[in-house]
Amino acid sequence: MSHIRSRFDKTADELVVQYTSSLSYDRRLYIYDIKGSIAHARMLAKQNIITKNEADEIERGLKAVAAEIEDGKFDFKPELEDIHMAVEARLFEIIGDVAGKLHTGRSRNDQVALDFKLYIKEAISETLSGIRLIQQTLIKTAEANIDVIMPGYTHLQLAQPVLLAHHLLAYFEMFERDYGRFKDCFKRADVLPLGSGSLAGVTFNTDREFLAKELGFSRVSPNSMDAVSDRDFALEYMAAAAISMMHISRIAEEIVLWSSEEFKFIELDDAYATGSSLMPQKKNPDVAELGRGKTGRVYGNLTALLATMKGLPLTYNRDLQEDKEKVFDTVDTLVLSLKVFSGMLDTLKFKPETMRKASDRGFILATDLADYLVLKGEAFRNAHGIIAKLVSYATKNNKTLSDLTVSEYKQFSPLFEDDVKDITIESSVAARNVTGGTSPKQVEAALKTAKQIACNQ
Amino acid sequence: MSHIRSRFDKTADELVVQYTSSLSYDRRLYIYDIKGSIAHARMLAKQNIITKNEADEIERGLKAVAAEIEDGKFDFKPELEDIHMAVEARLFEIIGDVAGKLHTGRSRNDQVALDFKLYIKEAISETLSGIRLIQQTLIKTAEANIDVIMPGYTHLQLAQPVLLAHHLLAYFEMFERDYGRFKDCFKRADVLPLGSGSLAGVTFNTDREFLAKELGFSRVSPNSMDAVSDRDFALEYMAAAAISMMHISRIAEEIVLWSSEEFKFIELDDAYATGSSLMPQKKNPDVAELGRGKTGRVYGNLTALLATMKGLPLTYNRDLQEDKEKVFDTVDTLVLSLKVFSGMLDTLKFKPETMRKASDRGFILATDLADYLVLKGEAFRNAHGIIAKLVSYATKNNKTLSDLTVSEYKQFSPLFEDDVKDITIESSVAARNVTGGTSPKQVEAALKTAKQIACNQ
Amino acid sequence: MSHIRSRFDKTADELVVQYTSSLSYDRRLYIYDIKGSIAHARMLAKQNIITKNEADEIERGLKAVAAEIEDGKFDFKPELEDIHMAVEARLFEIIGDVAGKLHTGRSRNDQVALDFKLYIKEAISETLSGIRLIQQTLIKTAEANIDVIMPGYTHLQLAQPVLLAHHLLAYFEMFERDYGRFKDCFKRADVLPLGSGSLAGVTFNTDREFLAKELGFSRVSPNSMDAVSDRDFALEYMAAAAISMMHISRIAEEIVLWSSEEFKFIELDDAYATGSSLMPQKKNPDVAELGRGKTGRVYGNLTALLATMKGLPLTYNRDLQEDKEKVFDTVDTLVLSLKVFSGMLDTLKFKPETMRKASDRGFILATDLADYLVLKGEAFRNAHGIIAKLVSYATKNNKTLSDLTVSEYKQFSPLFEDDVKDITIESSVAARNVTGGTSPKQVEAALKTAKQIACNQ
Amino acid sequence: MSHIRSRFDKTADELVVQYTSSLSYDRRLYIYDIKGSIAHARMLAKQNIITKNEADEIERGLKAVAAEIEDGKFDFKPELEDIHMAVEARLFEIIGDVAGKLHTGRSRNDQVALDFKLYIKEAISETLSGIRLIQQTLIKTAEANIDVIMPGYTHLQLAQPVLLAHHLLAYFEMFERDYGRFKDCFKRADVLPLGSGSLAGVTFNTDREFLAKELGFSRVSPNSMDAVSDRDFALEYMAAAAISMMHISRIAEEIVLWSSEEFKFIELDDAYATGSSLMPQKKNPDVAELGRGKTGRVYGNLTALLATMKGLPLTYNRDLQEDKEKVFDTVDTLVLSLKVFSGMLDTLKFKPETMRKASDRGFILATDLADYLVLKGEAFRNAHGIIAKLVSYATKNNKTLSDLTVSEYKQFSPLFEDDVKDITIESSVAARNVTGGTSPKQVEAALKTAKQIACNQ
Repeated sequence: MSHIRSRFDKTADELVVQYTSSLSYDRRLYIYDIKGSIAHARMLAKQNIITKNEADEIERGLKAVAAEIEDGKFDFKPELEDIHMAVEARLFEIIGDVAGKLHTGRSRNDQVALDFKLYIKEAISETLSGIRLIQQTLIKTAEANIDVIMPGYTHLQLAQPVLLAHHLLAYFEMFERDYGRFKDCFKRADVLPLGSGSLAGVTFNTDREFLAKELGFSRVSPNSMDAVSDRDFALEYMAAAAISMMHISRIAEEIVLWSSEEFKFIELDDAYATGSSLMPQKKNPDVAELGRGKTGRVYGNLTALLATMKGLPLTYNRDLQEDKEKVFDTVDTLVLSLKVFSGMLDTLKFKPETMRKASDRGFILATDLADYLVLKGEAFRNAHGIIAKLVSYATKNNKTLSDLTVSEYKQFSPLFEDDVKDITIESSVAARNVTGGTSPKQVEAALKTAKQIACNQ
Repeated sequence: MSHIRSRFDKTADELVVQYTSSLSYDRRLYIYDIKGSIAHARMLAKQNIITKNEADEIERGLKAVAAEIEDGKFDFKPELEDIHMAVEARLFEIIGDVAGKLHTGRSRNDQVALDFKLYIKEAISETLSGIRLIQQTLIKTAEANIDVIMPGYTHLQLAQPVLLAHHLLAYFEMFERDYGRFKDCFKRADVLPLGSGSLAGVTFNTDREFLAKELGFSRVSPNSMDAVSDRDFALEYMAAAAISMMHISRIAEEIVLWSSEEFKFIELDDAYATGSSLMPQKKNPDVAELGRGKTGRVYGNLTALLATMKGLPLTYNRDLQEDKEKVFDTVDTLVLSLKVFSGMLDTLKFKPETMRKASDRGFILATDLADYLVLKGEAFRNAHGIIAKLVSYATKNNKTLSDLTVSEYKQFSPLFEDDVKDITIESSVAARNVTGGTSPKQVEAALKTAKQIACNQ
Repeated sequence: MSHIRSRFDKTADELVVQYTSSLSYDRRLYIYDIKGSIAHARMLAKQNIITKNEADEIERGLKAVAAEIEDGKFDFKPELEDIHMAVEARLFEIIGDVAGKLHTGRSRNDQVALDFKLYIKEAISETLSGIRLIQQTLIKTAEANIDVIMPGYTHLQLAQPVLLAHHLLAYFEMFERDYGRFKDCFKRADVLPLGSGSLAGVTFNTDREFLAKELGFSRVSPNSMDAVSDRDFALEYMAAAAISMMHISRIAEEIVLWSSEEFKFIELDDAYATGSSLMPQKKNPDVAELGRGKTGRVYGNLTALLATMKGLPLTYNRDLQEDKEKVFDTVDTLVLSLKVFSGMLDTLKFKPETMRKASDRGFILATDLADYLVLKGEAFRNAHGIIAKLVSYATKNNKTLSDLTVSEYKQFSPLFEDDVKDITIESSVAARNVTGGTSPKQVEAALKTAKQIACNQ
Repeated sequence: MSHIRSRFDKTADELVVQYTSSLSYDRRLYIYDIKGSIAHARMLAKQNIITKNEADEIERGLKAVAAEIEDGKFDFKPELEDIHMAVEARLFEIIGDVAGKLHTGRSRNDQVALDFKLYIKEAISETLSGIRLIQQTLIKTAEANIDVIMPGYTHLQLAQPVLLAHHLLAYFEMFERDYGRFKDCFKRADVLPLGSGSLAGVTFNTDREFLAKELGFSRVSPNSMDAVSDRDFALEYMAAAAISMMHISRIAEEIVLWSSEEFKFIELDDAYATGSSLMPQKKNPDVAELGRGKTGRVYGNLTALLATMKGLPLTYNRDLQEDKEKVFDTVDTLVLSLKVFSGMLDTLKFKPETMRKASDRGFILATDLADYLVLKGEAFRNAHGIIAKLVSYATKNNKTLSDLTVSEYKQFSPLFEDDVKDITIESSVAARNVTGGTSPKQVEAALKTAKQIACNQ
């Protein structure tokens, strides 16, 4: 029976143990738990709350526990409820009664908040690396395909030709915002909760600044009741992750589209494709599909914790235990997705010929024709109307715009001259020479900036 | 290398294996997978697609695989992707090349749909049992406390006295609706997908009616493209589960409230309470809190799969693989919650004295006073106004309604007579003698009906 | 000042009125509110709680209020909080003090539950009609295109050829399950709450069976505390709607894909397409995109109410007021989506030539080749491996399967004979002649059944 | 017929107009739309794309349109689809054909992104003010009640006594994190999209830096494809709002609890309470309940847009139109909640006597007793065990801790001495004198810091 049940006459019901134990998943916090306990023991000694010898003994014991866990020799008993109890119980076995002094001036409430924050800070660092990785791949891929023109779409309809590099850099920007969000999340997570006790602070002469320094926190929490019941850092991470996975789902959708027989813009590397058990010819973009699908999972995790936190009175309530699995799953999913998608992008082959040909279809240059008329003096809305009629005429006569003769053009506006034939997908791309536009000059500048951001860390 | 990669030059990237493998969780479908394969082999033999001997050999092999898994001797290799491949690969090892005939007229798409439906049907049965269990506990607890009066609340304000049994039976009704929803879900899940092939049906002379009978399905799916891409049954289960967990969260909230020092309506059994690591006096309603908290988890699972399914073109897409973990977690959470809450309700002790005393506070009989005036001829809205003034007067004079004299009453309406003093919490409860009302007579009738529904299965 | 504030010294703060008033949206319940009040007045008279004259007067007044609202002459004052108060206040103005008798034996809690259930029952009927409408359109479109072959996809990769009619009927099945869910939801919503009072039942000699009959309910609620705090019917509707919108989002995605230059399987009717303000050539599938986008909205409504309901103690809490807007929005969105998508499907033009040509690409007949070998005696898994090598060979030599000579085939298996050349997309489709399969025979049978279900109501 | 339909032969179907039109809600963007158009016209003139006269004429016309809208004289016709078209159509009527020049170098895609960002920036400012307002109220209330002691809870069980001011400042910290999140969101929203055209940038000699300056943006968007399809700013706002509403839901829950007869810690001001239609005595915390309930709504809005954005290929898709209603509703709900809760907190009355008495119950000083033993040399875990036994003893003998004699104490540990009787709720509070703790000294310091943050803007 755990000592926290010492007032009770009964052991917990077996199903209750199963219902309440978090040990099956919170064990992965062990490294933070032990790190936090070592810092706590040192602080207690520094403040003469325990002796230096006691602290050393505790530290020795904790390191032994850590070694056992790392070596896979640790026995995780569900009835010990959580990683904190599991570590402490083993510490008693190793170093005896002095273990009982470790919990002085500390509660499981501030302890778990500490462990979880140490975890999330590391998770954020890993996430930031994952983002930089995929950004670097996007840059590399954009540079390697700097001359490739492809159709730009709105509503999945051909709209205007763009550089593939420009398209790829759109994702660079999305991830750059994600990067900023995770950095800001880190800033708010970087606050030490230890020393908040159960809820009201502790009575011992605790040195929280020492703890913060020892554990790498920038600040100490300013309110103990908030510190033990706050899970904003988990929610903020999961919200940023939801947005980031949404970005991944958009690339994923494009990879699925581009891999189809209808688009055929890319060929996935075999290492990132899967076959079919029934259809031997299939080369399926499963990785992209799973990334798209796992977006739902990350959304669900956010929904779950938001719902769980709703309407809880202060301070700690056991409902909060539901936080960890959701966050672990979110971190694992996002970080792995970033890596796997980076690998997939890095190895896929673009088909520049197909992409270029696909750009030269439909009436993709219609906007350029309208702009042509505007530059010759027509009001934009009139120009728009004229080109609409031209498109309608061409469609009915089964012609493309390049099939039309200059005299056919002139039937729709006297402003058309021979130079209308100079409008090509290349000229169209080059003409969008405004900051953020798709012209080669702009895209090269954007690439340069992107490299400064993501490659010179 | 899995045979479904036979066209490819490369093995899958290691992270890709981690990203795409479902074996860590779909292994629990093994029993359904093997059951389905045995039925399939028998059907192939019956239809002379394979020989009887081949079918027997396959069946023997599959049973050997099942035994290995049950005995914990099976080696689940992640690179085999999923349980279907893992079972089949081992089957090859055990029975040799004849294993290659099992997949005739079948695809992983209809196979996984089958396994998952067999699972969900069993999960629904287990859920229905869990619901009946908690309903029986509610009935038992209601009967054991048939005379207990407690305050009924609206807005967490004292409203009108009610029988505790009536309050408990409100939950009976919620669970009864849940029961109906899961039954209806079963009805729609009870449709055999096997025989749909990858998406278009199969070319072999398959006998789907035989398969349905063998595997206990009422109907065969009428459209193969739908059958392999349908996950409605998973969503419908999770939606019903979300509503059911919401009900549990409401009991949970009440148990938390009632356990508080302020309410003190109940005392939890030690087996269903938890202590504090720091505060030795605490007896915390952790089980109730976790039930409330886990509601978020079940909501999140629903959100996740709904998001995952959105906008997928027909037919099977790998995104669907994300369905299983969410459903497993939902089933496990709901079924365990039903059991644990049933145990908690069954063992907690009500404090009838405290509950009764709590009913006799505030102005809980104000409605009865208004009704009294109405019965003496006052219009309801006027009566309401008169009692409002009376309450205001009593509040200002620091009196309860029973402190007031008949002559004080008369100052507010000449209709008040001596019999106003006959209004008590008992008379109030007894007066609500309408179907569904809280009068002892009605509650006894309701209990009788409830027992017919939930106890005589 | 509303009479329900009669005990208070102050009027509500202006922002509070804005925060708490539901009149801006619950006004659309007026017809149900008045219908319910008329039935209630009749019951009160029948039971001699009020006189027949009073009931007539109340009924006359209520009908006058209804007429004013229908004629747009009713002044909805936000400070009256909700439609119930607004109607009652006006009733007082029209018929004077006798209006005060209407609320006898009724509370806003059971009144709003009644109104909302009357609404949802009508909403379900409308939804069922909407589903039948789109099912009929699917049937009609399938019949009109009964000979059209198109590529069937898995993972958006060409998989096997199918009939367009078969593809369309997959949606028929999805909607058929939706239909069942809404019917089941109706069954559970069809329970009269009136007579539950605030929470405990009413003291007057109410005849709830009379009310149920008058208002068209099959049953009366068996527990008053449940009846006033139950919103399962709203949640169940929204959950069924979420699944149904998911189905719509899948058609929507396909319409977007099929409208693209890359697929070109369909042309939308102008009435269901939108142009671009900048690109005159665009014909955008906005309606489909909005249907796909609005799926998120319907999901969000479900999430919202689930979260709102979580952890509420019994009985009525004001949080419940948040139910109506979410449900209204869900009903409006779903019903309109069903109608608009039906219209869009009914008017779009399929391009059978393009679809057929698209089917005859890639290695879409690979499964048929494998099945061919199996029928000649090869084990399925071997056959799969042989065809995989064949596909690999053809790809490397830039050939399609039909480019291969019989002798090339024979290099991969001696089982290949001249009749391998008889495998065509037509033979492939015809071969899937199993219940639920895509063969013309099966699809015709499926169409017949579908018509019996959806057209002969 | 709108000019964007000029290529089409038909008007849109009536239901389609209803389905696609956003004018009923995006009209509130008019001020941003017109502001953006004026800046655009000025830029076009500055760059000699149109003449100064034309720009002046356009500006005059746009101001006239703005005036009409403000005066309620504007006719919003649904068939004009959206606010951009509505304004432009009216501009044509007022100034004639020169209106046609305004759309030069601009698309609805970058126009709507601009309008929405101008809106969100203002919404964030308003939100930040709302947060400061409630923070100021919390500070004021804390200061006014600086001496009040109340029970601190974990698991809604009495845990340790705390200062009410400390409890209130816990919320200050939550809102302070919210403040930071909205500031960071502003930073990322503060990027001009105009000049991105439909997707690829514009061909005219646009001066985006001029536009940014004119419209108060810090930066211009670096990628046009991203700029027109990015709704991160909306999602980030809604995610921050969801967390902030969660904080509000926690206060709300506490206000509901504290208003109950069982807690009676507060009395709400009449202006923030609501009565009952049936129960004249009720004073319901409806405002708090609605705040708690509306949390679900804000969650649902986030879920909705996340789901809508999932898996959209680049660039603009009409699905994005679903963004605005969700954001508007979120902003309105959050800002109003902050204001209303601030008002409610500002006017409610605390009952210090009741709160103090509630603190002096149960075994709320048990931790202090354990700490007492630790300070006398006992190891913490032993001390915990001793106190647990003491509590068990007292419970069985129906005594409180203060009922126990020193000699009874001594039976459990020889370390107990007479000074054990000096432990009181006051000494307990004072002893938690660590940064973030509840001691008066710490709380005063925290208050001082809070005022520097929130009151000296």
